[in-house]
Amino acid sequence: MLAIPDREYKERIRKFQANISAAGLDAALVHSNEADFANVRYLSDYWPTFEAGGVFVPAKGQPVLIIGPESETYARLRSKIRRIEKMTEYRESAEPDYPTIKVATFPDVVKRAMGGRRLKKLGLVGYSILPVPVYKRLQRELKGVKLVKADDTLANMRIIKSANEIALMRKAFKISEKAIDAVLGEIRPGMTELQVIGIAQREIYTHGGEYEGHVLYCFCGPKTCNAISRPTHNRIKKNTMIQLNIGTRVGGYSSSVGIPFVIGKLPAKKKLLWAFGLEAHLKTIDLIRAGKPAADVVREYEEFVKQRGFARYMLYGPCHGLGMMEVERPWMESSSTYDLQENMTFQVDTFFYDKDFGLRWENGIRVRKGGAQKLSSKYMKLVEL
Amino acid sequence: MLAIPDREYKERIRKFQANISAAGLDAALVHSNEADFANVRYLSDYWPTFEAGGVFVPAKGQPVLIIGPESETYARLRSKIRRIEKMTEYRESAEPDYPTIKVATFPDVVKRAMGGRRLKKLGLVGYSILPVPVYKRLQRELKGVKLVKADDTLANMRIIKSANEIALMRKAFKISEKAIDAVLGEIRPGMTELQVIGIAQREIYTHGGEYEGHVLYCFCGPKTCNAISRPTHNRIKKNTMIQLNIGTRVGGYSSSVGIPFVIGKLPAKKKLLWAFGLEAHLKTIDLIRAGKPAADVVREYEEFVKQRGFARYMLYGPCHGLGMMEVERPWMESSSTYDLQENMTFQVDTFFYDKDFGLRWENGIRVRKGGAQKLSSKYMKLVEL
Repeated sequence: MLAIPDREYKERIRKFQANISAAGLDAALVHSNEADFANVRYLSDYWPTFEAGGVFVPAKGQPVLIIGPESETYARLRSKIRRIEKMTEYRESAEPDYPTIKVATFPDVVKRAMGGRRLKKLGLVGYSILPVPVYKRLQRELKGVKLVKADDTLANMRIIKSANEIALMRKAFKISEKAIDAVLGEIRPGMTELQVIGIAQREIYTHGGEYEGHVLYCFCGPKTCNAISRPTHNRIKKNTMIQLNIGTRVGGYSSSVGIPFVIGKLPAKKKLLWAFGLEAHLKTIDLIRAGKPAADVVREYEEFVKQRGFARYMLYGPCHGLGMMEVERPWMESSSTYDLQENMTFQVDTFFYDKDFGLRWENGIRVRKGGAQKLSSKYMKLVEL
Repeated sequence: MLAIPDREYKERIRKFQANISAAGLDAALVHSNEADFANVRYLSDYWPTFEAGGVFVPAKGQPVLIIGPESETYARLRSKIRRIEKMTEYRESAEPDYPTIKVATFPDVVKRAMGGRRLKKLGLVGYSILPVPVYKRLQRELKGVKLVKADDTLANMRIIKSANEIALMRKAFKISEKAIDAVLGEIRPGMTELQVIGIAQREIYTHGGEYEGHVLYCFCGPKTCNAISRPTHNRIKKNTMIQLNIGTRVGGYSSSVGIPFVIGKLPAKKKLLWAFGLEAHLKTIDLIRAGKPAADVVREYEEFVKQRGFARYMLYGPCHGLGMMEVERPWMESSSTYDLQENMTFQVDTFFYDKDFGLRWENGIRVRKGGAQKLSSKYMKLVEL
């Protein structure tokens, strides 16, 4: 079965330690939770549920996995990091006391990781989701230690994908396409959006997915205007836009295939925007190649949309990073300051909306010197059932 | 369709404002994210995905929903709170810039909510998941305002369920039982744990669920030792314990039905612990009634387990709060200091484990004067397929 091999986890720790040193840090504390599991899983394969998770990584020494009081048996089963400590601040948000379970302090964790080495400056990774109680405990127990946001030390590693990572992503995209095959075969007017999601979920797990790659989307009619939303008991209708975004996770790596389609026919004006969306989606893929500034892709894409007269239907775009999370760094924005590099992977994400409908084409690509290599392509077409 | 009516949302805001005043606070800021959505949804029905969500509630004045830059159309569709502001700190964890989207500051939010009223003391609800960047921005922009953890102001309301909340929970339990019906009908040796999850997912959405109530469990063999875990590609085998915990969410309310079962037969020693687990599960339900100290239930349960000679197989127990989250306040622990009250709802959660297997019975109950009323009961039996 496809999986990241143990040696690659070891290599990740080594590289991360080099980045920690290079950033002038003595150690880093990495945070993840159930919704945003990626940083901790990247380093340890530990995948939190209910409780949160952390990894304390010294510039020199041994990493320590930090878990909640209930997760020890689970963590010992799957963590590639063998030193494990339980801390109260990593418990469930219902804040149980666990009067009989022994827990550690940050000085305990630091000692296991660093022995007697000095800790003056600690980098925080996953800062945007780091909870206040963890931060306050660090301040209280590690007095005099400087705490700094240090997401780049890990994010810059995650941005370039290895062959194993790309293989997992390819499999995740393949399963998403199979789930869409099933949905297009079984969807009927009168079903609810949520019932359609049930078809996709069944297929994801049948074909070897380990979870949804993101909260799955099925929206019908005016709800397709929503850039972010959730499926509801809203019923599927004919002759109106239906939006599917189906993501699968495999071995910690996520995909998403987005296709707007119709049962019956769309009015001509809507069909125009629908078809232009696909054209713009393919245009973005054409614009991508290693060595090019990311902001240039955005500028050229926006220029293309403007020249064709569709700028007022555009919310944002055209790409965001893709890997463990279905949305991860780096985004491609007009404010981006990096160049595209080989083996970066992106979700090409093309969203247009009008007053009463919207559409979002999504497919994955890998950056190569010659251009973009598609990770999915089966559903780059206008489907009228 | 079952749902919390608008007037109940209005009533929640009024009660919460009274609690804010009674706690000596001028306002409260409530936080939720995709994994822990409950506090924000309780007040607004807004259910974050990808991005985070907040509600700023003044003791007097109008509440303001705070969302990420991408969620405005979605939030306007479903939020019961009509004043909505976007803030950068509520964005996705990949930290996009969104150079073209206008966002607000905390002083903007405070002004919309409170007009010119004074803000000296702000309660923080959902403190255990409040991210550091939100906290630091509060400190920076609301200088001189005292920030205090204030989870009790909202948690104490959520603990006692209304008739509408209980109706949603009953429906969620009914769907979980239907999902287990399907799994027991279709499970075969050789399937992976994840393929079994696919059957349950299909049924949850077919019968009207809006999401899983928690990350679903299917574990086989030694993996049943795990109190917290995730299903894997591990294959289902005969004559060994199989653990299912299937939770459905309906209208924001979660269920979970847990049943350990076997295809074939268990060895006699394992069967003994399996059957005792069910007996202990039913014992807990017998011990519950309104007016009783929660710690007494725990003490009597633990005494029962000890007298019967099974104490060394017990990790914790026997109950935790149940409602919007499948695990929420209050827990029943030996350290609990509250009395059971009518219309509290609990998950009776009976977990025992030995070296090479474990079992967890789970069902929901509602506290009544006369005793516990079961919210699910179909699978309180020893199933040998």
